[in-house]
Amino acid sequence: MIRNDRISEWAAWGRPEDAPSLADRPALLAYLDEELGKLDPPVPPLDLELVKVPASRLSPAARQALVDAVGGNRVDDSTSERAAHSVGKSYRDMLAACTGRLACVTDAVVYPRDEADVSVLLTAASDHDLAVVPFGGGTSVVGGVEPRCGKHQAAITLDLMDLNGVELDTTSQLAEIGAGAFGPDIERGLTAQGYTLGHFPQSFEFSTFGGWVATRGAGQQSTAYGKIEEIVQAVRIATPRGVIATRCVPASAAGPSVLQQIVGSEGTLGVITSGTARVRSLPGCRRFRAWFLPDWSGAVSFVRDLLQAGVRPTVVRLSDSEETRWLLKTASQTGGLIRRIGKAYIRHALRARRFDPDQICLCLLGFEGTDDGVRLACRSAAQAAGECQAIGLGSTPGRSWERDRFTLPYLRDELMARGVMVDTLETATTWRNLEHLDRAVRGAITAAIQASGSRGTVMAHVSHVYATGASLYYTFLARRQAGSELDQWQAVKTAATQAIVDSDGTLSHHHGIGYEHLPLTAEHGPLAVEGLRGLKAALDPDGLMNPEKLV
Amino acid sequence: MIRNDRISEWAAWGRPEDAPSLADRPALLAYLDEELGKLDPPVPPLDLELVKVPASRLSPAARQALVDAVGGNRVDDSTSERAAHSVGKSYRDMLAACTGRLACVTDAVVYPRDEADVSVLLTAASDHDLAVVPFGGGTSVVGGVEPRCGKHQAAITLDLMDLNGVELDTTSQLAEIGAGAFGPDIERGLTAQGYTLGHFPQSFEFSTFGGWVATRGAGQQSTAYGKIEEIVQAVRIATPRGVIATRCVPASAAGPSVLQQIVGSEGTLGVITSGTARVRSLPGCRRFRAWFLPDWSGAVSFVRDLLQAGVRPTVVRLSDSEETRWLLKTASQTGGLIRRIGKAYIRHALRARRFDPDQICLCLLGFEGTDDGVRLACRSAAQAAGECQAIGLGSTPGRSWERDRFTLPYLRDELMARGVMVDTLETATTWRNLEHLDRAVRGAITAAIQASGSRGTVMAHVSHVYATGASLYYTFLARRQAGSELDQWQAVKTAATQAIVDSDGTLSHHHGIGYEHLPLTAEHGPLAVEGLRGLKAALDPDGLMNPEKLV
Repeated sequence: MIRNDRISEWAAWGRPEDAPSLADRPALLAYLDEELGKLDPPVPPLDLELVKVPASRLSPAARQALVDAVGGNRVDDSTSERAAHSVGKSYRDMLAACTGRLACVTDAVVYPRDEADVSVLLTAASDHDLAVVPFGGGTSVVGGVEPRCGKHQAAITLDLMDLNGVELDTTSQLAEIGAGAFGPDIERGLTAQGYTLGHFPQSFEFSTFGGWVATRGAGQQSTAYGKIEEIVQAVRIATPRGVIATRCVPASAAGPSVLQQIVGSEGTLGVITSGTARVRSLPGCRRFRAWFLPDWSGAVSFVRDLLQAGVRPTVVRLSDSEETRWLLKTASQTGGLIRRIGKAYIRHALRARRFDPDQICLCLLGFEGTDDGVRLACRSAAQAAGECQAIGLGSTPGRSWERDRFTLPYLRDELMARGVMVDTLETATTWRNLEHLDRAVRGAITAAIQASGSRGTVMAHVSHVYATGASLYYTFLARRQAGSELDQWQAVKTAATQAIVDSDGTLSHHHGIGYEHLPLTAEHGPLAVEGLRGLKAALDPDGLMNPEKLV
Repeated sequence: MIRNDRISEWAAWGRPEDAPSLADRPALLAYLDEELGKLDPPVPPLDLELVKVPASRLSPAARQALVDAVGGNRVDDSTSERAAHSVGKSYRDMLAACTGRLACVTDAVVYPRDEADVSVLLTAASDHDLAVVPFGGGTSVVGGVEPRCGKHQAAITLDLMDLNGVELDTTSQLAEIGAGAFGPDIERGLTAQGYTLGHFPQSFEFSTFGGWVATRGAGQQSTAYGKIEEIVQAVRIATPRGVIATRCVPASAAGPSVLQQIVGSEGTLGVITSGTARVRSLPGCRRFRAWFLPDWSGAVSFVRDLLQAGVRPTVVRLSDSEETRWLLKTASQTGGLIRRIGKAYIRHALRARRFDPDQICLCLLGFEGTDDGVRLACRSAAQAAGECQAIGLGSTPGRSWERDRFTLPYLRDELMARGVMVDTLETATTWRNLEHLDRAVRGAITAAIQASGSRGTVMAHVSHVYATGASLYYTFLARRQAGSELDQWQAVKTAATQAIVDSDGTLSHHHGIGYEHLPLTAEHGPLAVEGLRGLKAALDPDGLMNPEKLV
C-alpha cells in the first residue's frame, strides 16, 4: 500500500473500476482491428509487488539526515514506494511498469509536512550529494518525475501530498494553494464557497497544483480561464539556496518576471511549495453547442474567425476527420455520442449539405458566464456556423464530452495490454502556420510508423485556442513491435518533435519537456538555454534539482 | 538639430506649441496658489545649445570601430546629440535639463540601421570596453536611459529610430514591429488596415515599441488589451553573446518563459531589436460612461465588483477625491469637463444624494467591441452604479478625457518652470490590500513633503484593473526647495517606495525600475536577484548592457 493513495494505479492511468472497456465498444474494437490489424488478447501488467528494484544507494548517514529532518515515518525506502514513485504516465513509463523493467529507481521517498521541511531536506540533500525529484501526482507524460541521479550519490523523491492547503481570499478572488493539493480537492473546497479555479487538465483527478505550475499546464477550459501561467499570480519555491516568494500583485514592471521563470521550471530550480491563483465565481450559465463542419480547413477558419471576433468559448474542441471518426466509434453502445444525436439525422444532413463523410470535422464549443453573455456568444457562434453551412448537433455532444472528459486516458491501458503503441503529443503555433505545421507533423508520424513496419493511424484536435493561434494535439496508434517497442516509439516521437521544431511550433503547449523530449536548445537555441543555466546555477549551484531534465 | 526628430523637446515633455498653458486655466492656478502657496513667475529652461558636456571619453580606436560598423554619418558625438540622449523625462532628468547640469553624458550616439548593425556594434563595444545604452523615445521617468558608464571606458547610446518596420499578418492578427517604431507610426500603419495594437501609454506620442517591451509598460486601455507583456508574443534581442529570437507561438510549456525574461529587462540583457505583437480589429462600437461615486472606498468596490462580475471595460479611470477636485479645476475655461457636464446638474445631484462634495470620486469607464457586447457591458455597469447611488455623468467626461489623454505631462513643464516639484509614481496590489497600501503611500508622501518644509498635495487614481487587484497611480506636487531640489524629491520618492515595498505593493506596475528606483532586491529578495544576475552573466558576461540599472 503506497502512502500517497492519490497516486493512480500502478501500470495504469487510474482506478481499474473506473476504466471503460473495449468490450463495451464493439464498433471501436472492429475499427481498431481494421485500422491496425487484429488486436492481441489482453495481457495484464506486472503487479507492483513483483517489481524488482536495485538496493537503495542512500548511505546510512544520508538516510539518517533525512530521518532527522522529517522523522522516520516520513522516509520510506520500501520497494513498492520506490517503484511507484519512479515512473510517471508516459508510454515509456507504462511499458516499463508493465514489464517491471524501470529505467531508474528513486532511492527513497520522503514526505515533507511543509515548506520548512522541504528546506531542511534540501540542506540534507546538499550535505549528502543527493539528487532531488519533486513529485505531485506523478502524471507526467514526458518523464518529468523519472528519478535521474545525474552525477550524484543517490536520488530522493519528495512526495508533496501533505502540502495541500487551500485558502481563499474572496475580496481579491485569489486562493493560496499548496503544491501537493490534488485537482478534485481544490475544486471541492472552492466550489463549496461559490468559486472555481477553472483548471481541468485531462489528468485533473490525479494531478496537483504544484505539478500544473511546474509544467506550465493547461486545463480543458483554458480558452476562457487561461493556462496555469496566467492563472497563477504568485509562487513560493524552496531552492537549495533558500526560498523565493514572488509578490502577489496583479501585474508588475519590476524587471523581468521572476514568477514566469519559475512557472515551467519542472523541478529544476527548486521545489514549488505553494502558489496563489486567481479564482472566479461559479458561472450562472453554461451551454454547449456542436457542429459538423465540412472539412478541416473550414473548421479551423470557423474557430479562428470566432476567436478573432472576440467570442471566447470556455471549451473548444475541434477534431479532425480521423478523430471525428474515432469519437463516433468510441461512443459506447449504451448511450454514446452518435446514438444520442441520431444517426438518421446526421445521414440526412450530410446528404443535404453534400459534405464528404470522410472529411467532416466535429466542433464542440462550451460557453460559461451570465445568461446574457452566454446567449450573446451562442448567437454569434450560431451565426458564424450558419455561414459555414455547418450541421448543428445541439448540446448533446458537449454534454457527452463533459461526462467522459477524464476517461480517455484509461483506454490506453487496455490498448497497451492488447499490443498497441498509443501515445499523444502536442504543440501550438500561429493560425497562419497551423496547416503547414499540421501537415508536417502528421507526415512525420505516419512515415515513422510505416518505417517501423506497423500499421497505424494518427488523429488530431485543436483544444486551446487564442486570437493569434492554437494548440494542436495528436494521438497516434500503431501495432507495437514486440522486442523493439521503445525504439519504435522513440523513432515516432523524435520524428514528430523534429517536424514541430522545423515547422515553427513549440516543443510543448502544456505537457512540458521533462526527460523524454528534445532538449530546450531545439526550441530556443543554445544562448537562451545558457541563460536558463545561468539562472539555475545561481539557485541550485550543485545541480541537485531534478537532474537531466529540461536543460 | 537632433537627428532623431521624434525625441520630444529638450527640457520639456513635448512640442511647446502643443502644451496647454496655466494661463488658460485661472481656476487651476488659483487652486495651486491655494494648495502650494503662490507660484513663482515662470523661468525658462536652459537652451540645449548652451548645455556644456564633458569631452567624449571614446578613444580614437573605439570611435573608429563604431564608424567601421555603421558608417561615419551614423556615429554622432556632437554636444547637442550627446546631451539630448543623456536624459529621459523623470523629474530628476528635467531638473538636470533645465539647469544644464547633467548627471552623466553619453560619449557618442550611434544609429544602427538594423539588427545586424546592432550585433556588430555590440562586438565593437565588447572589444573596446564600452557600456551600451539602448534608446527608443527617451521618455523613461525612472532614469532608464541615463548613460551610466559603470567600470567601463566609455558609454555609447544606441538610438534605434531606424529599426521601425511594421509588418502585419492578418490571418494570425500579429504584427512584427521594429523596436524603434513610435506609437503614432505603429497605429497609423495598423489603423489603415483595420487593426489596432490597443497600447496607448501616456507617452504614446514619443515612445517606442522597444521601450514599451523593455520596461513592461501599460497602455491606458490595458484593462481590455493587456499590458505589453501580454500583447507581445515573441521578441528578438541582440546580446553581447548573440541574438535570441523567441518562438512566436500563442503559448508554450517548453520550460520557463524566455520571452518573459526579456520583457522588462530594461536594456540590461541586450538590445531588443523587434517583437511580434497581437493586434485586434478596430472595434465597431466605442462608448464612455462616467459617474460620481460618494467616496473612495465605495468607488473602489464599484470597480472591483464590476471586474469580478466579468465586465471588462477598455478604459478605467477612477480618481480619488483630490484628483477629482484637480480634474474639475484643470478643465480649461473654454469647454472643459465641469462646464460641459453642467455645474448646476452636479450641484443639484450632490444635494439630492447627500454626497459630501469633498469626498466624491470621478469614475470613468470606456467600452469597446461589438454593438451588442458594448450595450451589455454598459447595462451591467449602469446597474451596478445604480446600486451605489452613483450620479451619472453621461459620456462627456470620457470624451473630454480622451481628447486630453496625452496632454497632462505637458503641464509639468510649466509647473516646474514656476517652482513646483511635481512627480508621479505607481504600484499595484490585490484588492484586499489596496486601501492599506494606499494609506501607507499617501501618508509617506505627505509626511516627506511636510518634512521638507513645503506645502504640497498628493492625489491618486486607479487606471489598470484586474479581477484580482489594481494599479495605484500617485501624483504629488509641492513647492520646490531651492538649493535642495534633488534631496527634497529623493526623500519623497524613497519614502513612498519604501512604503510600497513594506505594504506588499510592487515597485512598479508600468514605469519600470531604471536607475532611480530602489534596487530589485527590495521587490524580490536577494536570491531572486542573484538568479537574474546569473541570467545576465550568461548573456552579457562583461556587464556592458545598461550598467547600474535594474539589478
